[in-house]
Amino acid sequence: MTRRSTGARGRHTIRDVAARAGVSASTVSRVLGGAYPVSAATRTRVMGAVRDLDYVADARAKAVAGAGTPTLAFVLDDITGPSFTHMAHGVEREATLRGHLSLVCSTDGDAEQRLAFVEMMRAQRAAAVILVGGAADTPRERERMIRTAESLRAAGSRLVLCGRPPLDGDAPVTVIEYDNEGGAQAICGYLLAQGHRRILYLGGAPDNSTARGRARGYLAAHHALGLDPDPALRIPGDFTRDSGHRRTREALAAGLGFTAVFAATDMVATGALTALREAGLDVPGDVSLAGYDDIPFARDLHPPLTTVHVPYEELGRLAVRSALGRAADGSHGADEHLLLGTHVVVRGSVAAPAAGRAGAP
Amino acid sequence: MTRRSTGARGRHTIRDVAARAGVSASTVSRVLGGAYPVSAATRTRVMGAVRDLDYVADARAKAVAGAGTPTLAFVLDDITGPSFTHMAHGVEREATLRGHLSLVCSTDGDAEQRLAFVEMMRAQRAAAVILVGGAADTPRERERMIRTAESLRAAGSRLVLCGRPPLDGDAPVTVIEYDNEGGAQAICGYLLAQGHRRILYLGGAPDNSTARGRARGYLAAHHALGLDPDPALRIPGDFTRDSGHRRTREALAAGLGFTAVFAATDMVATGALTALREAGLDVPGDVSLAGYDDIPFARDLHPPLTTVHVPYEELGRLAVRSALGRAADGSHGADEHLLLGTHVVVRGSVAAPAAGRAGAP
Repeated sequence: MTRRSTGARGRHTIRDVAARAGVSASTVSRVLGGAYPVSAATRTRVMGAVRDLDYVADARAKAVAGAGTPTLAFVLDDITGPSFTHMAHGVEREATLRGHLSLVCSTDGDAEQRLAFVEMMRAQRAAAVILVGGAADTPRERERMIRTAESLRAAGSRLVLCGRPPLDGDAPVTVIEYDNEGGAQAICGYLLAQGHRRILYLGGAPDNSTARGRARGYLAAHHALGLDPDPALRIPGDFTRDSGHRRTREALAAGLGFTAVFAATDMVATGALTALREAGLDVPGDVSLAGYDDIPFARDLHPPLTTVHVPYEELGRLAVRSALGRAADGSHGADEHLLLGTHVVVRGSVAAPAAGRAGAP
Repeated sequence: MTRRSTGARGRHTIRDVAARAGVSASTVSRVLGGAYPVSAATRTRVMGAVRDLDYVADARAKAVAGAGTPTLAFVLDDITGPSFTHMAHGVEREATLRGHLSLVCSTDGDAEQRLAFVEMMRAQRAAAVILVGGAADTPRERERMIRTAESLRAAGSRLVLCGRPPLDGDAPVTVIEYDNEGGAQAICGYLLAQGHRRILYLGGAPDNSTARGRARGYLAAHHALGLDPDPALRIPGDFTRDSGHRRTREALAAGLGFTAVFAATDMVATGALTALREAGLDVPGDVSLAGYDDIPFARDLHPPLTTVHVPYEELGRLAVRSALGRAADGSHGADEHLLLGTHVVVRGSVAAPAAGRAGAP
């Protein structure tokens, strides 16, 4: 067993690192200190030399080492949800291409956690802080977001809201939305066109902006045909597999009577599918099923899931490009607001209601 | 439209925050400065007051704000893999309970990214840095890990390796392993006991420690029965759904001849299942299928997947408890090495080979 002395480290100087990396000492200093601009290739070379020599910067350099690598921050509510982890993957890839490190914070929906993380990222002078996912769309929440946007701007950073409602006024924020209402209206219109008239909607939390957008689309599709869906068919809940499973069991037990299910997310649809199967119902023979998100394993379900495609990985890349492209040209003027379209992916989980069958009890 | 002046903020003093939170100014300072110990309840109260008053600390306090919230860092290779995101969720929950913020960095397997993140976390004085997932088990990689462990110790932090190979000697590291070899041996033993003799193994990268452990289990189960499996049946690849799908198609096209598939992860099994179905093969009627990890939607596949359960969320909690419990009692002595057991979960995807059938071509 070899004990390595920590005292043996730190013997190399910044000049040794510079020599090994083939750059000047001031470039090493800029890389470690986070000063712009340094190319990704130079950074890689310098950090490689730092590692090879096990270089330990002096105390002052250490103090700024937290700001040593330019960073991007990505904040989500639930790290176990596949849609946002694919978006995080897009953020990470685009950030890496641009020489930034992306940090992820999952808050479990806790506003204090989010605040603490944003504070930390502001102190680190992160180039941008990207918040993703539905939010409680209340005046208090909007007020908080405006403060966050302004405090980040004051630190030279930028708030990016992705799949969250835009803010009032001229808050310094980039907003990237995907069309929750339009996508939901399209897929519910498809279910209605197949002849379904009692469509169970497994929604989200009542004040969640994403859930509300999808619920509006469900209603709009009905209204477009002059239909007024039974309110008993709209059941709120979490965006999880277990919630979809439980709500479907309960709806069947309550004898709600439906021939199709529209799940507000594919995770909810995954749980619903298993609950339908456990009840001896065939999908789509007895009950049709549609989801939202098009997470990668939607096509691996049996039957493969008809759903609404949201380009999550591309959304993550776009959020980074918007934030960094903006920083690069130094503009801090107009708001930016992008709305991306979605589309229905038809697979095998939707069919016309069987003639003479009432569907689920 | 209301433009909020950033100059209007910062008018509150630390005493205002203290009064609102019902604590002393020095407590506010401790919370913002990251000094121990501060209870989670106090931290929440103080941070609530900071938010309510939109308090902006002075420059010095700002400089340490990066270290203001005690942090834990979690590093994984692929944020889209559900097993590690569930572990990240366990880390996050346990960290929150203990008043720490957990930061996640997904590196796409890039050692430079990992190094930059570890440097940042060291500068922030993160309480612990948890690395998860298989690694290339080479002398160079072990040497790097030993340096990382020592540099973190020098900063008062702690390296935790989870599901990664232990280091040589007395490096200051906590190692938490789950039993890859034992789990693989158990599930392959189960396939063999059902009568399967040609089991396709869809493994991982050849030098990945997790993949190697699972491959050893596959071989050990055969050797225990005096069998020597055909090396052509062991096919390396990535731990992804797409890799499982592609390799299964290729194995079928090559006419390898197998009656069962052991996929090294459930994601690989998910892709394999779809490829088998696309080839017109029934699971388990024509080919049996077993996975590894027991990710939540394994039970939502059709048929539900027989697999090896790894308690990922609990692993994440345990990693945090080990690291912080240790820091609390101040001990910096013995290595810590935990090995958690796994168990087979029998569902519907494995059956005896059909009499008179050769299985897949």
